[in-house]
Amino acid sequence: MLDKLSSLAKYTASCPFLGRTKTSTLRTLCTSASSRYPTLSKLTEKATRCPVMGPALQVRSNQMVAGYASIAGNAEVSNMHHHKSLFTSGENVEKCPHASKALAAARMAEDLSKAKKQKATKAVPKASSSKAAAGCPFHAEATTEAAKATAAAGGFNYEQFYTTELEKKHQDSSYRYFNNINRLANKFPIAHTGDPKDEVEVWCANDYLGMGNNPVVLETMHRTLNTYGHGAGGTRNIAGNTGMHLALEDELAQLHRKPAALVFSSCYVANDATLATLGSKLPGCVYFSDSMNHASMIQGMRHSTAKRVIFKHNDLQDLEAKLAQYPKETPKIIAFESVYSMCGSIGPISEICDLAKQYGALTFLDEVHAVGLYGPHGAGVAEHLDWEAQVRAGNSPEPIKGSVMDRVDIITGTLGKAYGAVGGYIAGSTDFVDMIRSYASGFIFTTSLPPVNVAGARASISYQREYMGDRQLKQMNVRQLKSRFESMDIPVIPGPSHIVPVLVGDAALAKAASDTLLSKHGVYVQSINYPTVARGEERLRFTVTPGHTVDQIARVANVVNQTFTELGIKRTSDWKALGGHAGVGMANAKPVKPIWEDEHLGLVDGTAPKLLRTGHSRVVDSRAVRITREKFNDLLGPVEVTPAVNHLQVARKDVLSIPSAVHAPTPIAVGA
Amino acid sequence: MLDKLSSLAKYTASCPFLGRTKTSTLRTLCTSASSRYPTLSKLTEKATRCPVMGPALQVRSNQMVAGYASIAGNAEVSNMHHHKSLFTSGENVEKCPHASKALAAARMAEDLSKAKKQKATKAVPKASSSKAAAGCPFHAEATTEAAKATAAAGGFNYEQFYTTELEKKHQDSSYRYFNNINRLANKFPIAHTGDPKDEVEVWCANDYLGMGNNPVVLETMHRTLNTYGHGAGGTRNIAGNTGMHLALEDELAQLHRKPAALVFSSCYVANDATLATLGSKLPGCVYFSDSMNHASMIQGMRHSTAKRVIFKHNDLQDLEAKLAQYPKETPKIIAFESVYSMCGSIGPISEICDLAKQYGALTFLDEVHAVGLYGPHGAGVAEHLDWEAQVRAGNSPEPIKGSVMDRVDIITGTLGKAYGAVGGYIAGSTDFVDMIRSYASGFIFTTSLPPVNVAGARASISYQREYMGDRQLKQMNVRQLKSRFESMDIPVIPGPSHIVPVLVGDAALAKAASDTLLSKHGVYVQSINYPTVARGEERLRFTVTPGHTVDQIARVANVVNQTFTELGIKRTSDWKALGGHAGVGMANAKPVKPIWEDEHLGLVDGTAPKLLRTGHSRVVDSRAVRITREKFNDLLGPVEVTPAVNHLQVARKDVLSIPSAVHAPTPIAVGA
Repeated sequence: MLDKLSSLAKYTASCPFLGRTKTSTLRTLCTSASSRYPTLSKLTEKATRCPVMGPALQVRSNQMVAGYASIAGNAEVSNMHHHKSLFTSGENVEKCPHASKALAAARMAEDLSKAKKQKATKAVPKASSSKAAAGCPFHAEATTEAAKATAAAGGFNYEQFYTTELEKKHQDSSYRYFNNINRLANKFPIAHTGDPKDEVEVWCANDYLGMGNNPVVLETMHRTLNTYGHGAGGTRNIAGNTGMHLALEDELAQLHRKPAALVFSSCYVANDATLATLGSKLPGCVYFSDSMNHASMIQGMRHSTAKRVIFKHNDLQDLEAKLAQYPKETPKIIAFESVYSMCGSIGPISEICDLAKQYGALTFLDEVHAVGLYGPHGAGVAEHLDWEAQVRAGNSPEPIKGSVMDRVDIITGTLGKAYGAVGGYIAGSTDFVDMIRSYASGFIFTTSLPPVNVAGARASISYQREYMGDRQLKQMNVRQLKSRFESMDIPVIPGPSHIVPVLVGDAALAKAASDTLLSKHGVYVQSINYPTVARGEERLRFTVTPGHTVDQIARVANVVNQTFTELGIKRTSDWKALGGHAGVGMANAKPVKPIWEDEHLGLVDGTAPKLLRTGHSRVVDSRAVRITREKFNDLLGPVEVTPAVNHLQVARKDVLSIPSAVHAPTPIAVGA
Repeated sequence: MLDKLSSLAKYTASCPFLGRTKTSTLRTLCTSASSRYPTLSKLTEKATRCPVMGPALQVRSNQMVAGYASIAGNAEVSNMHHHKSLFTSGENVEKCPHASKALAAARMAEDLSKAKKQKATKAVPKASSSKAAAGCPFHAEATTEAAKATAAAGGFNYEQFYTTELEKKHQDSSYRYFNNINRLANKFPIAHTGDPKDEVEVWCANDYLGMGNNPVVLETMHRTLNTYGHGAGGTRNIAGNTGMHLALEDELAQLHRKPAALVFSSCYVANDATLATLGSKLPGCVYFSDSMNHASMIQGMRHSTAKRVIFKHNDLQDLEAKLAQYPKETPKIIAFESVYSMCGSIGPISEICDLAKQYGALTFLDEVHAVGLYGPHGAGVAEHLDWEAQVRAGNSPEPIKGSVMDRVDIITGTLGKAYGAVGGYIAGSTDFVDMIRSYASGFIFTTSLPPVNVAGARASISYQREYMGDRQLKQMNVRQLKSRFESMDIPVIPGPSHIVPVLVGDAALAKAASDTLLSKHGVYVQSINYPTVARGEERLRFTVTPGHTVDQIARVANVVNQTFTELGIKRTSDWKALGGHAGVGMANAKPVKPIWEDEHLGLVDGTAPKLLRTGHSRVVDSRAVRITREKFNDLLGPVEVTPAVNHLQVARKDVLSIPSAVHAPTPIAVGA
């Protein structure tokens, strides 16, 4: 204890600023803004002049001025004042903010500098980060101090262990800095950063259709909030099962033309809980899992402790060879996705159903990146594959016998992406859903989603079942962006879906490209690194919505092009010269056609929606709004309708304030 | 195929009603309400006259008339029409709604009749449910049919497997029927059932303080919805990290006086992801787990695959004996709870911290049922135990050295119970939180919570940090209810917390009591059965809020008393005569004192809040509202204030419409 106190005194003495500044002064400096950089505190500004903190902070001053908060960035630095008592208390020396912030800044500086050196030196010295830590007089001593305290006690050093695990992430450039992005409902697809005045364009959100700001969704949520308040107040079994939950599950079952559906906190939980339960209950169950399956499915299968056989991505031959190794009576589950979100490939659903039938397997299809986006009613790729039959069937909840969607046993989907809400679900047979409802711990023992979100999700699904224009416009915009990138030799990983993955092929370089686009051009597109994608296949993943205008699409292609040049990132032709990589520049590659064909887009019969020229506006289909509203009349009562705003028929100013250029589109006949 | 068609024809032929009724007529019958029972469809009314469906439905006619939807109850029956095409399609005979609904009704009838027979015959014949199934001409044949179809194909019969698993649940009375409960924001603690006109009192929700309808929470949510729309639009790493999320985590870190906090989809996910990550990363880690830990913790520890040693509930001797078996340098985690939600016991936190220090273990404390409810600022039991020091420290985020809360390494909590929102979190050291942020799959790969919920949660926490009256009034109401029950010889399982568990000791009887209270008295209190509690310890678990009035508390005690008599449920004196059970009627039991003592409640200095006499009103503390509002000014802008409503200073009618009898309480000094 005495030891610790004296070493703290040493730190304070070694920092002339801290040594002579009163706690009250420090607090004032923290809470008043720098006049030069309004997003920073005066304390942070002062820190840039410190010989220890200064150089580290300087490296990332561009980012800081722009106000892009990140966990280890200026958000933490500006939070320093929360820990001011540490300077005076004498305990927790290992948590000294001066030391840990200096280390964080040094790390970030190092991570950034890696990107710049990347072209010259591929290999980063393994020990450089810990060297930086050792080179920091505060951190080195603090670490020694903490280690000493623990050694004296004789126990395991947990804090040191955390630090080591984090170091690993820095070493392989997989440490994640979170950007502070606040998507504005009234200015879609614009967001503000940590500074509300600093606006950027969002090009990577999974609110794929902008349903998070759809007027009938927000109106429904305001109404639900007024009627039922915030939280559900319990698990589904204890006070948390409302009419809104039952209605959402009914809507989902109808959407997929299945007898039943069940809602979970998220689709991560839905996949995890369902696969864990099925695999542990079915006697001797074997999973057949696509090699590119999402983490949630991998976790669920692992948690089941059932045997897991991995087949090559979308490879039917490999799958069949593996299925054939087990007797037909062995319970089997083929787990796969429709749209693989990081590369944009699409699973061969119908063919997998054939194999499942032949070998006696269940099919488990994750449509997370497809629901809301594919099919005439937004039920996903399985619906899309029987386009005409599905259009004819309209909104009937009856299964279409022999259709792909009918042949899939279990469909899982999310409410958090194209539907712009939160939560996930499964759909399937009545007894299957009832069994999961009865046995899945992750469903049973958790508070259910709030009625307000559940109602918003249902409004979104209902609207998208009735209106196809958003889906069509999105895909038209995807075509635009892909074609612009391709014309500029920017390497788009080919795929038939809405995902626009641009290959960078290096973790630090991908982060640098993302940072440059954000700080220099106000374009937010997150870099996708390991473990989300394989090492060497790092990328920028663009998502284009119906809300992006023609001009925005043209501009983003230009600034990406410019950034590629500045950072010396490989072009399609470079990859081609190297024999191709990750699907880019491969010799003799067949062109991949989008599964949204011209006919589906209405380009053949002239019913296609118009491309958007003006920003922040939104086309709202009044018929879909009316039908959606009516579904909530039983619980929320009818909406007061003002005839003057009959294009939307919304009485609430809150909602009407959103679309400044709302106009009634030509209605598109869907499923009459 | 021909086989299936002919057997369907047989069913249709065997039902004279189905045989001669057109599909269109069936649909009309489904969508028009019965004139006798307005909550039922005409089709359901007709079904009561059917010789197969009728007797089964008749048994539960009381419940049905009241409109209490349940999964296998009238909600499903009335949904029959969704499946009408099954009558004509010739496939999916095993899904025949007539058969499955008849079976469901038969099951429920059987489950109910068990309750009545309970006193006479303890043992229910194991095969009765399957006998009922076999006795149903539709189901028996359908099952045979399905089995035949699968046998022909030679694969595993998945549907039969689901049915068998569900049968097990019926056999041991652990099958759950969900009640349809819609808690009304404007009439707290009143909810409506499946019929919006049918209102009941809620006595088991975990919206412990009614924060789900707190005006400043709802106001903040309306504002956030207007500004940021619905969903977050991505994971925390990709477009889903907003200022609202960062601010909530800062608020939580401050609340627990810890350096960092991290928000998850739910506390189930927080516990699961954190324990799974820690246990799998720490080399040779051993978990020491309280035997009554929540399912989410058990799952997390299992998923880690680390060794798990279970110690007797709250038994320090047993814990120490088990800790002592491992070398001090072995990484160890003691995982336990503060308030055990189903029995209301409280963990010996301080003593466990002592043992942890002695044996070199981390402490992982689940404060899910305590945050918002204990301590002068609502930080939980760990805060409560240092009452005076915590009051003195006010809202400073600095740790109080040596305090219980400071000595706990990892605290997890929920936003979905006392805070009336949704989501969960962990709080602890910076590097610990950063490591979980960087490695926990369940955190990384999921869409983050919507800004609207995150803002609502933060408003709730902020309000409760400033205002203690809700917590005090809640505990005063708990005292009232417990004392009324005790005076009536109703067996309350003793405990020092806010949970009021009333022992029934039998699954079917507990369900019958819950059903009777709901249908006869409009009192909703869910029965708690296995696996949530041990077999033979089934109970009714009452939660009392600050919103329950003196009259409501008196009435509920009376109707519970009446129900105990009617159903012949054992009293405290009965258990005493049997030597005691589950803590009730034990010989030489020491009286358990509540940890909210008279001083904490303000009963000593006269600052206690007044008991509520009028229903649906809410005391709102204007100072706490003002402070909370100001926290959102940076992102949402200032709220317009109308001086006329200065007790609340809320300009929005939406919010003001909630508390019809709002009044400014005497402010209670908390932490200066």
